[in-house]
Amino acid sequence: MKLAKVVGTVVSTRKDEKLDGLSFFLLQDLGPDMGLKDSIVVAADSVGCGVGEVVLYASGSSARQTNQTNNRPCDATVMAIIDSIDLESGDRLYDKAAE
Amino acid sequence: MKLAKVVGTVVSTRKDEKLDGLSFFLLQDLGPDMGLKDSIVVAADSVGCGVGEVVLYASGSSARQTNQTNNRPCDATVMAIIDSIDLESGDRLYDKAAE
Amino acid sequence: MKLAKVVGTVVSTRKDEKLDGLSFFLLQDLGPDMGLKDSIVVAADSVGCGVGEVVLYASGSSARQTNQTNNRPCDATVMAIIDSIDLESGDRLYDKAAE
Amino acid sequence: MKLAKVVGTVVSTRKDEKLDGLSFFLLQDLGPDMGLKDSIVVAADSVGCGVGEVVLYASGSSARQTNQTNNRPCDATVMAIIDSIDLESGDRLYDKAAE
Amino acid sequence: MKLAKVVGTVVSTRKDEKLDGLSFFLLQDLGPDMGLKDSIVVAADSVGCGVGEVVLYASGSSARQTNQTNNRPCDATVMAIIDSIDLESGDRLYDKAAE
Repeated sequence: MKLAKVVGTVVSTRKDEKLDGLSFFLLQDLGPDMGLKDSIVVAADSVGCGVGEVVLYASGSSARQTNQTNNRPCDATVMAIIDSIDLESGDRLYDKAAE
Repeated sequence: MKLAKVVGTVVSTRKDEKLDGLSFFLLQDLGPDMGLKDSIVVAADSVGCGVGEVVLYASGSSARQTNQTNNRPCDATVMAIIDSIDLESGDRLYDKAAE
Repeated sequence: MKLAKVVGTVVSTRKDEKLDGLSFFLLQDLGPDMGLKDSIVVAADSVGCGVGEVVLYASGSSARQTNQTNNRPCDATVMAIIDSIDLESGDRLYDKAAE
Repeated sequence: MKLAKVVGTVVSTRKDEKLDGLSFFLLQDLGPDMGLKDSIVVAADSVGCGVGEVVLYASGSSARQTNQTNNRPCDATVMAIIDSIDLESGDRLYDKAAE
Repeated sequence: MKLAKVVGTVVSTRKDEKLDGLSFFLLQDLGPDMGLKDSIVVAADSVGCGVGEVVLYASGSSARQTNQTNNRPCDATVMAIIDSIDLESGDRLYDKAAE
């Protein structure tokens, strides 16, 4: 899975009929230091994420293994919201509670 | 899904028999600032997109989950036309109506 | 699909038994200006392409959706030969007849 | 598979219901010289890996071919812990016992 | 498929049970000029390749379409050993017999 920040919301009224009811979020990938990378992706959501949160998204056929995205033309799905990331050193790389 | 601009149309008369009836569009990927990136892809279309529009396309096996592309040797399909993208700040990153 | 030029032919006598009868071509990816990029791929062929032609190839599981490649350990297949590409401006980016 | 170092642990309480019981690790890809690259991925684990270990992870649908990840929205899974890597020259590129 | 050189062997005793009996090789990708690129991958093998050989490997679900890798958590498999590559100019880019 990739680590990303939810940076925006995407609205589309003209979309494939199989996508009805799905919300789309604009994600920006995060690097080893939790900084924003230059790459973006638009993902569906199976966990009720919100703008500003740090999340995990699955890509490819794995993005269709949720009840919300099964059999749909969707190749990226947010499937977890991150609480914290701890490093080998004991340092906490990310802490949602401290944001 | 990736965010891209439809920049051209692609004509092929000699193609795999399973592709009959599909239209192909030349897409150019967009970056976090909606600028054109250096990467292009040719995609089928399940929503009736046109040149100049900002769209989402699905890649890989997810590109075959539309009625138009099912079981076809197609790995990229436009499955949504974007109306607008809003950022956390409240700024509107993209607005089709304002183009 | 990716846009590429067929730049060479690849010969292999020791290959997986499921690949018998497939021809392999060396492709070099093309950029937005139709220039050769630094990335190459070796692809099977479902349309009878030849060296020097500009083609589309499908990747991943989509590369196995042709009669020639079904159930084979093949992740890239040429499935169309390009006749022409037209841009929004009306300019013709590529014209096979003019090569 | 990609070669990576397990650099951290990831905690998520709000995740897709199909992910219950899976642990997530933060991996950083390794280059030809075993140096850390700039790219990270979050992976599930089918072998009981620990922080600091050098591992292999499978991506995409292959990441779901373990008993732990079958049918789950997971696109990266650690499926081997590396003991050693030997080069053509006879040099040992990596040796877990020497760490 | 990607073109790569087999640069090493990888030993893992603690791996997913579904991987028993598979050998793993360290591959380094090759560029248009047959030079080694900065990217590496670890692959299973369905053809009996050896260190020093130039090979093709399939990625993703296509890597599981061999008898050796079917239903296993493996996303890269060597499925051909290259004899020769000829360019449009008539030049031979690679010749195993001349190595």
